[in-house]
Amino acid sequence: MTKQYDVVILGGGVAGVSLAHSLRRQRKTVAVVENNLYGGTCPNRGCDPKKILLSGLEVTQLVDDMQGNGISGKVKVNWSDLMRHKRQYTNPISNATQNGLASDGIDTYHENAHFNKDGLLEAGDDLLSGDKYVIATGQRPSILDIPGKQFFKTSTDFLNLDEMPEDVTFVGGGYIGFELAGIAHAAGATVHLIHHNDRPLKQFDQQLVNQAVDHLTQLGIDFHMNTDVKAITQVGDQFVLSGDDFRLPTDMVFCTAGRVPNVDTIGLENVGVKADRHGVLVNEYLQTTNPNIFAMGDVVSTKRPKLTPVAGYEAGYLAKYFNGSTEKIQFKAIPTIVFGQPSLGQVGLPSSIATDDSRYMLITNDMTSWYSYHRLNEPLAKAKVVINRDSETVVGATVLSNHADYLINIFTMMIDQQMKISDFNKEILAYPTFASDVQYLI
Amino acid sequence: MTKQYDVVILGGGVAGVSLAHSLRRQRKTVAVVENNLYGGTCPNRGCDPKKILLSGLEVTQLVDDMQGNGISGKVKVNWSDLMRHKRQYTNPISNATQNGLASDGIDTYHENAHFNKDGLLEAGDDLLSGDKYVIATGQRPSILDIPGKQFFKTSTDFLNLDEMPEDVTFVGGGYIGFELAGIAHAAGATVHLIHHNDRPLKQFDQQLVNQAVDHLTQLGIDFHMNTDVKAITQVGDQFVLSGDDFRLPTDMVFCTAGRVPNVDTIGLENVGVKADRHGVLVNEYLQTTNPNIFAMGDVVSTKRPKLTPVAGYEAGYLAKYFNGSTEKIQFKAIPTIVFGQPSLGQVGLPSSIATDDSRYMLITNDMTSWYSYHRLNEPLAKAKVVINRDSETVVGATVLSNHADYLINIFTMMIDQQMKISDFNKEILAYPTFASDVQYLI
Repeated sequence: MTKQYDVVILGGGVAGVSLAHSLRRQRKTVAVVENNLYGGTCPNRGCDPKKILLSGLEVTQLVDDMQGNGISGKVKVNWSDLMRHKRQYTNPISNATQNGLASDGIDTYHENAHFNKDGLLEAGDDLLSGDKYVIATGQRPSILDIPGKQFFKTSTDFLNLDEMPEDVTFVGGGYIGFELAGIAHAAGATVHLIHHNDRPLKQFDQQLVNQAVDHLTQLGIDFHMNTDVKAITQVGDQFVLSGDDFRLPTDMVFCTAGRVPNVDTIGLENVGVKADRHGVLVNEYLQTTNPNIFAMGDVVSTKRPKLTPVAGYEAGYLAKYFNGSTEKIQFKAIPTIVFGQPSLGQVGLPSSIATDDSRYMLITNDMTSWYSYHRLNEPLAKAKVVINRDSETVVGATVLSNHADYLINIFTMMIDQQMKISDFNKEILAYPTFASDVQYLI
Repeated sequence: MTKQYDVVILGGGVAGVSLAHSLRRQRKTVAVVENNLYGGTCPNRGCDPKKILLSGLEVTQLVDDMQGNGISGKVKVNWSDLMRHKRQYTNPISNATQNGLASDGIDTYHENAHFNKDGLLEAGDDLLSGDKYVIATGQRPSILDIPGKQFFKTSTDFLNLDEMPEDVTFVGGGYIGFELAGIAHAAGATVHLIHHNDRPLKQFDQQLVNQAVDHLTQLGIDFHMNTDVKAITQVGDQFVLSGDDFRLPTDMVFCTAGRVPNVDTIGLENVGVKADRHGVLVNEYLQTTNPNIFAMGDVVSTKRPKLTPVAGYEAGYLAKYFNGSTEKIQFKAIPTIVFGQPSLGQVGLPSSIATDDSRYMLITNDMTSWYSYHRLNEPLAKAKVVINRDSETVVGATVLSNHADYLINIFTMMIDQQMKISDFNKEILAYPTFASDVQYLI
């Protein structure tokens, strides 16, 4: 039997769940179809568990940095305790999210689903018909297509690892590879990070990335740049990665070479929805090439960073659009962070623009010896700030420090509010804090 | 011989030094007179060293909180190492500051000074004459006038303590008492905090203060409220504090009952400058009752919090005023923080206003179980936010958590920018961070 809804949402992640609840407040009938964990990537196998595991790195690094500077004694990461701490947070998420939807009067379908040739959504034995559909199926880890690829584990596996092996390898130097490498290293593993060219974290300022890599190398992470892994073989209990003039045995290998949109099994071809390798194509209303079908979140083909708050923002946009708003979607500055010790954060225009365009000026700061960083004996603290000379506003910033997120969020607000530097300097911020340093960075 | 300057500044603290350099950029001739350490309270015996010593509390508390949640092993504060770490920062400050002034062409006088009956400033053997004078002599710890008061030590002594005694007592439950008590407790001392009534930290939300006190009591800090210390006697190696039905032996006792302005020995009576017990009286141009004499920083009689960034802001104001600006001084919101574990921060209108005035609405949040705080197993995280119903803006906030300063700085910017809540909700902040929670707090 076909069930009729105002809106059928394919994907019960951050965007889907948020939109579903918003539409219920508009008294619309809503279905959410999810084939995996409700809540999706972020709370189950993404940002949230990652940053819980990162607490191990944060604490051990802080103790190391302060050793001899006021702190005596050593701590270490207890991986099974840390994993239990993580699971205490993640385990209830899916049921709680599904129950939350149900108690709000939203029908949930825990099924694989696809659009059929009649344009209806088949979810197991059910046929769902919506006045509108929203695709929010997200992404999954991409797996390099090489011999032995079946030996690759993914970030999802890492975030649910019962025991940390003695020797682990990450193939792919994007933000996931860097973050997981830091966590594994803090947990006591020997860590290798392999990247196919010499430009890991390519969306970030190259100089600061190189400084981070040098620092992590000193701490003992084994980087292999310009290295293509061409095969994996199992030898005894280990795996051997091999390429041209390259051979590395390791206990466990994770593919961290990006993520791919979940567009291949949902029958887009049956409803005229076009996608490319970056995801579903949408216009400025998040409308796909089928006017009754919309897409949001990580599954959308976009150059925007695919991040939880972006997905949430898009869900908020669609809730208003479905309620009659006719505005195009517009984005404020989108900050991105590689969490670690140090973290690397970026927002707005990249540092490189000041080289290419005389309207912009770059201010480069080494804060390592500044009070706020000296206090905790942080080994590395840098910031590059891009200023628009005419408007005298900050238009971009990159920060490398254990506390980069604090500054990046302040810069994000300055950019969004188009605050003149002279106006920011009238702010009286709590002293001494990372924020009270900002006036000296600009 | 009388030396003539455009501006003579009495006090080489944050305000005085900042103003001196600014005036030099205007090519004015400037003298700075300081009778103690150049740099003044903040970097030598105030905010900066305090927060360096606080790192001991931050690290040990974080390790305690994460014990069994992913971190194994114990650390402790090594007081002599911590003090060395602090001195490494503070020891060079005074000379470096004086050298910085000298190399900028500013004359410095390391002397006690006072205005004489001719209206000139006597600094040791020198007579200084200024077209304008600025009083920036700051404050010093107040000492309760009781028998045995000579046994009181001060915050200055605490911040330079070679060894932490086994048992220490703080008399006065203001922000200094709370901060130093937290530092001493983390360093392993048995800590008593005595307050004369039942309302310590009276400028902060009473409910959150009480929750902080309850929490610190559970951790082992021994609070005595409604207790007047009426005498101190020395008994062997200890000091005995006594009052009505009260007797407490302790190894060291600190008077943390506020600070008094340094106005008594500088000859204000000779130049017609009026002061009250809160400091030098000034008008909206920071001008004293003598039109050629100005005052700034902690020595000013004001209801504003006496804080480093306020002093710096006032110095910036006077630099512009002396350069021809005729604007009155105006202040943005001034955040205040009691640093500790937890920290307690406040900015803008107090929570209580929502009880008294229907234009305001109070939103009370317990974030203790929220992801950001659960992640680090923080035991206590609360926020109260005051909203103006008409303008739909945040006008005040109080936050209690280990990371209160992060949120308070965000709220300060929201208040200063008069950001509508709906506009703030369009901000995309780095996730997951304390800042990305703010949309759920308002």
